Amino acid sequence: MTDGKARLFIQEVAPRDGFQNEKQFIDTREKIAFIDQLSDSGFAKIEVTSFTSPRAIPALKDADMVMHEITRNPGVVYTVLVPNVRGAERALACNVDEVNLVMSVSETHNQANLRMTREQSFAQLSDVIEVVRGTDVAINVSLSTAFGCPMEGDINVYEVFELVDRYAQLGVNGVTLCDTTGMAYPTQVGKMARQARERFKGLEFTMHFHNTRGMALANTLSAIGEGMDRFDASLGGIGGCPYAPGASGNACTEELVHMLELMGYDTGVDLDRILGISGQLPGMIGHDVPSQLLKAGPRGRLHPAPRQD
Amino acid sequence: MTDGKARLFIQEVAPRDGFQNEKQFIDTREKIAFIDQLSDSGFAKIEVTSFTSPRAIPALKDADMVMHEITRNPGVVYTVLVPNVRGAERALACNVDEVNLVMSVSETHNQANLRMTREQSFAQLSDVIEVVRGTDVAINVSLSTAFGCPMEGDINVYEVFELVDRYAQLGVNGVTLCDTTGMAYPTQVGKMARQARERFKGLEFTMHFHNTRGMALANTLSAIGEGMDRFDASLGGIGGCPYAPGASGNACTEELVHMLELMGYDTGVDLDRILGISGQLPGMIGHDVPSQLLKAGPRGRLHPAPRQD
Repeated sequence: MTDGKARLFIQEVAPRDGFQNEKQFIDTREKIAFIDQLSDSGFAKIEVTSFTSPRAIPALKDADMVMHEITRNPGVVYTVLVPNVRGAERALACNVDEVNLVMSVSETHNQANLRMTREQSFAQLSDVIEVVRGTDVAINVSLSTAFGCPMEGDINVYEVFELVDRYAQLGVNGVTLCDTTGMAYPTQVGKMARQARERFKGLEFTMHFHNTRGMALANTLSAIGEGMDRFDASLGGIGGCPYAPGASGNACTEELVHMLELMGYDTGVDLDRILGISGQLPGMIGHDVPSQLLKAGPRGRLHPAPRQD
Repeated sequence: MTDGKARLFIQEVAPRDGFQNEKQFIDTREKIAFIDQLSDSGFAKIEVTSFTSPRAIPALKDADMVMHEITRNPGVVYTVLVPNVRGAERALACNVDEVNLVMSVSETHNQANLRMTREQSFAQLSDVIEVVRGTDVAINVSLSTAFGCPMEGDINVYEVFELVDRYAQLGVNGVTLCDTTGMAYPTQVGKMARQARERFKGLEFTMHFHNTRGMALANTLSAIGEGMDRFDASLGGIGGCPYAPGASGNACTEELVHMLELMGYDTGVDLDRILGISGQLPGMIGHDVPSQLLKAGPRGRLHPAPRQD
């Protein structure tokens, strides 16, 4: 399978992190058809939906239906965002492979985003872990603002690691270090990646970058240089709260895969296939997507020479 | 000045590579005022204009006036694009610091872009070098499609180096390796940078990346890793033939400087100042610019926490 090339694992978050931010409701059958195509594209993991209150996130009010109706590929881990025990119970009823729990490293961001203190979030997520632990469902924790908070500024890396440590002690399988608003930069990423891997050897780390300030791919290189091998990304670059049409949010899956495959990595992902799926997004969500690769086409797609007059 | 930090040299190309592609003519006085602000921002070099035929590039028909009227900062190298001996004579009459000569490594691209064979281009540029050599004006050669041609595909690195070698023998001061359509990728860049520096020790190399497929900053990291220290970039990311509104062309100066300064490099460039200048661009050129940093603001510009109800 790998031809001796280093294997990287790409985790697609568009159905949750992308669709969650869309004002226009995407038809449930369209979502299912979209995810079914992703399941056939070589992703290691797909974040399918969020088991949040339909009032909080109406865009994903069809979470149970979507999770039940998609055609699952045994080679893919299907994960869902779960904010509380009620969400966890719904997720378990849908037979998910993994639950993904979210809180911020920044106190200010946690309160702004989740309307709880960090300690309240930790207690609530500990209850979720209590419910899920002992089942065969994996548990991942996503730590927002790990590389900086748009309100507090720099985040002390020891606050990140203290939270990782507390969740590791509760037995979670993986932790995602999230650059929620695109504040991470390559030297910072490299240093945190190195320290995280040294300190938490059993934990499966995922890097979740945003391209808000153009650094998502540069940060990815830096993380790979320190041995990280799992990356969240969103098809078309959708989601991640872009503040302006055309502004970038999440790292763009096709741009990530395109670069990594050119560099000789084995991402497992079929680039032509995901470009085809990404091309459906503007029609589905009713607006342009940040992906530049979708506009430019992959490097290898050549153009005819112009006729000389 | 440098506080012991590694020094990188940023070369601003927006007045030539950016404005050249604008349909709407930018008033000469506006161009001069724009360049005068750039002169005060810490750039190592500014590509001011192009001494091409006004019929070929009407957007830059005011080249002589602009070059004469700008207020020059003795710390900045003022370079201009020159296609032929007539252009060189005009440039010399304006007392430029450097002439920049352009041809493609790809035969197909050279014919499509310049309507000459590569050998015809080489002969024509050799005549220019003959005219300029012996004056105190420096000579740089920009080699387009050095990392790939949109029509031919991969470019053999030995074809790049053969051209570099021929120009080095003619006594040029510097060579720019141009990723004209955003086909460069990090491992390729690193390898070419290493080989170029090993093989041509006396030559001043510049890397000219485009962000067409999102890789400009990642490629920059890779080039720095192999000792390259000079980078072209365009304020706002304008120019470089973007094919769609909002699509990226040239590497965006403010995004480049923002990342490099966060990483601890000394670029010499005042980020706040250039963000202010970049913010004038949409008004000047009548449309949005690709820069994401202009939308998001620098990492350190914090936001107030929302009021909790």
